[in-house]
Amino acid sequence: MDAAEFRRRGKEMVDYVADYLENIEKRQVYPDVEPGYLRSLIPEEAPEEAESYEDVVKDIERVIMPGVTHWHSPYFYAYFPTAHSFPAMLADMLCGAIGCIGFSWAASPACTELETVMMDWLGKMLKLPEDFLAGTEGKGGGVIQGTASEATLIALLAARSKIVKLIQADHPDRSETDVISKLVAYSSDQAHSSVERAGLIGGVRMKKIPTDDKFSVRGAALHKVLKEDRAAGLIPFFFCATLGTTPSCAFDCITELGPICNAEKIWMHIDAAYAGSAFICPEFRPLLNGVEFADSFNFNPHKWLLVNFDCSAMWVKKRSDIIGAFKMEPLYLKHDHQESGLVTDYRHWQIPLGRRFRSLKMWFVFRMYGLKGLQAYIRKHVTLAKEFESLVRADQRFDISADVVLGLVCFRLKGSNELNETLLKRINSARKIHLVPCQLAGEFVLRFAVCARTTESRHVQEAWSHISHLASELLQELPH
Amino acid sequence: MDAAEFRRRGKEMVDYVADYLENIEKRQVYPDVEPGYLRSLIPEEAPEEAESYEDVVKDIERVIMPGVTHWHSPYFYAYFPTAHSFPAMLADMLCGAIGCIGFSWAASPACTELETVMMDWLGKMLKLPEDFLAGTEGKGGGVIQGTASEATLIALLAARSKIVKLIQADHPDRSETDVISKLVAYSSDQAHSSVERAGLIGGVRMKKIPTDDKFSVRGAALHKVLKEDRAAGLIPFFFCATLGTTPSCAFDCITELGPICNAEKIWMHIDAAYAGSAFICPEFRPLLNGVEFADSFNFNPHKWLLVNFDCSAMWVKKRSDIIGAFKMEPLYLKHDHQESGLVTDYRHWQIPLGRRFRSLKMWFVFRMYGLKGLQAYIRKHVTLAKEFESLVRADQRFDISADVVLGLVCFRLKGSNELNETLLKRINSARKIHLVPCQLAGEFVLRFAVCARTTESRHVQEAWSHISHLASELLQELPH
Repeated sequence: MDAAEFRRRGKEMVDYVADYLENIEKRQVYPDVEPGYLRSLIPEEAPEEAESYEDVVKDIERVIMPGVTHWHSPYFYAYFPTAHSFPAMLADMLCGAIGCIGFSWAASPACTELETVMMDWLGKMLKLPEDFLAGTEGKGGGVIQGTASEATLIALLAARSKIVKLIQADHPDRSETDVISKLVAYSSDQAHSSVERAGLIGGVRMKKIPTDDKFSVRGAALHKVLKEDRAAGLIPFFFCATLGTTPSCAFDCITELGPICNAEKIWMHIDAAYAGSAFICPEFRPLLNGVEFADSFNFNPHKWLLVNFDCSAMWVKKRSDIIGAFKMEPLYLKHDHQESGLVTDYRHWQIPLGRRFRSLKMWFVFRMYGLKGLQAYIRKHVTLAKEFESLVRADQRFDISADVVLGLVCFRLKGSNELNETLLKRINSARKIHLVPCQLAGEFVLRFAVCARTTESRHVQEAWSHISHLASELLQELPH
Repeated sequence: MDAAEFRRRGKEMVDYVADYLENIEKRQVYPDVEPGYLRSLIPEEAPEEAESYEDVVKDIERVIMPGVTHWHSPYFYAYFPTAHSFPAMLADMLCGAIGCIGFSWAASPACTELETVMMDWLGKMLKLPEDFLAGTEGKGGGVIQGTASEATLIALLAARSKIVKLIQADHPDRSETDVISKLVAYSSDQAHSSVERAGLIGGVRMKKIPTDDKFSVRGAALHKVLKEDRAAGLIPFFFCATLGTTPSCAFDCITELGPICNAEKIWMHIDAAYAGSAFICPEFRPLLNGVEFADSFNFNPHKWLLVNFDCSAMWVKKRSDIIGAFKMEPLYLKHDHQESGLVTDYRHWQIPLGRRFRSLKMWFVFRMYGLKGLQAYIRKHVTLAKEFESLVRADQRFDISADVVLGLVCFRLKGSNELNETLLKRINSARKIHLVPCQLAGEFVLRFAVCARTTESRHVQEAWSHISHLASELLQELPH
């Protein structure tokens, strides 16, 4: 395919994409396929000879679409949202065309510099403390990671490296493995599975702090565990606070936890993967109070800020902490500007070496929505969640299982876990809407997350009437 | 921006992309900007109100392009290639539109299943042993990682987890940290910096095995170190072989190393990040002989197989090894088909949780080029490298510093490192072509990597005459 054919096919693809998104409601949100469905639809090997574009394109509807879960359907209420917008898609086309691999400043200065400035723009939208911004002389700054899982891992590894150096400075005889064997990291018992996984990868003990009745970690709970662990000869070094947990969108109390971490020289990382986007609205910004105590902070614009995956925004107060943990300098990656204070080599900030020009997506989205447009988008989702909450609350058969703070509603039928499991199974089998469950204080709970950009009140009303109808059917079948 | 405007803007962007690529030769390959250039060109904060698309688009040439290193210019010979093709860009547009996050089978079955089948297609193209293919009942299989760095890390962590379990089975009293403190991993002294970094992240000792005069690790060299380390009470557990090293595209001798690793129960991972694409050609496939001894194998179609970044292909013989190291199962990620043998949940195979629908790029590229088209592409680059090699060899002032096997030529002026550093500086300052150096056996060496899809003989000839001219100037300045 040459550039001339790309002009034609690219425009056809633009129309296909627009058609897909304009008509996504008409597609069944969750597919009917059984595991292994796809293999029999296509050849067992790649073709020897080139096929035509027509042949490939007609297989999209035959092979791919029947097996797609439509995350951008307004009938999709599962997991958390993944961001999606036209400006981000346009920026991604440009990113693909430039196709640079921005692992160092020299590898493509625009790629690095736009990222640093966009992370400052975003930090300012969130009113992050100055310490986290790069500016022209800052010691902190932001970086785009692929996912929150990577951000948590990077923070934990940086904290591990820092504490090992600190302890070895006082006790030069202690080996790294000896120190690591005493380390202990903490998170909420509601924290995402990726936090526990970060501990596993880093080879450190990871303990879950029990949460209160709002599913929030409080200062006293952390304090108690720290005291016990210090007494047992362990070395607490890392606490991952969650703002907006995956099960119920609960918030750890960082105004209590932060001062404890600072006093105890424990690295506090904040994972606000989903909730972080909301902090651009003044009315939700208080949820981030206490961030000034954190060493690193992360949230995913690719969840709820209209920047297509992947774009996970991470800030650190001291870039030297994060760089120091990973820096390797082979000759083929050195360049003249390496030592300048203005130059950032983002490869030292992340697990992969290569990186795409992802900040273009932020630039397009921030400018074409404007701060007000982004705030309006967040508020609309929160309003829809509140609308769904009201519908649930008005039905005596149901309970709301956790405070509805942002765009997630946790609810269940009054009754057994089994009853709720059956209800969820019926909802998902009907294929009209798609939800996933969570567990809260031993209870099986349904999660209703407002996800799609195009979700409107009528979809939420429809979803509720569908759920309510299935619940009625289910309850009627039960022996009285 | 609504779908209607996207139709218009998307088509404009397609034309912009086609224009950019058709005229890329006319742009200076390496930018003139100084560190910090971009910040002053744009506002300090995101706009409050939405801007128009015109405003954004006109800034591409004003703000972005002056700072871009044009990796797809036929004058770019630095690092290694990063893949770029029209079919991959079209597939990426579709990937962005579907915008699913395929962390589990249920999250979008098509995303998972196409990936499994495409990895089988690619494995067959490389004639990988059957063990590495998923098929319908295989114990192995492939996964798309973001980068080779992640693949190496995943392999090392899986090997670490496996050896710890193995040793604890015999010695239940030994703690994990105690075992880890005795572990030792190995790689070539020519291995990529990401291998050493994987050891650092995994918290294990990492030793570099000295290479022979072809920059290749031989069996005897590994054998010697293993013997010493076992005698010292260490536990060898992981060897990362490199096929196509970054400095000089050298190949570790895996037919010798593999049997040693198998006999000593050491996990052998093969990193063929760059060279791997060439193994689809029968004449280069012998370079992969010995892969049958490996536990895992990885290369980057996003380097040299026309699939835009990111797409790093990794295969394992036993998927249970890799899954066992990371599996976490919170309720919100469970689904009905979890336990079926046909179902793959790729989130257990990788560091991040989220993942894009990257196999679409492979599908489009493999079909629209066909195996023959892909082979022709590889052969063209190798031929161009050989052409450059001949030009260098015909000039008595220069030496070829390493065997030219694929698309990389390592060369230098006869003389001091300083002389060659000066030559490289002048080449890159002239901005006509772009190269990076490496170090081989203490010598500063220039690397000429055939990179762009559109590089032709005339570009290589031009590049050489430019280098030769700069060398003449430099040598004339020297005192006789």
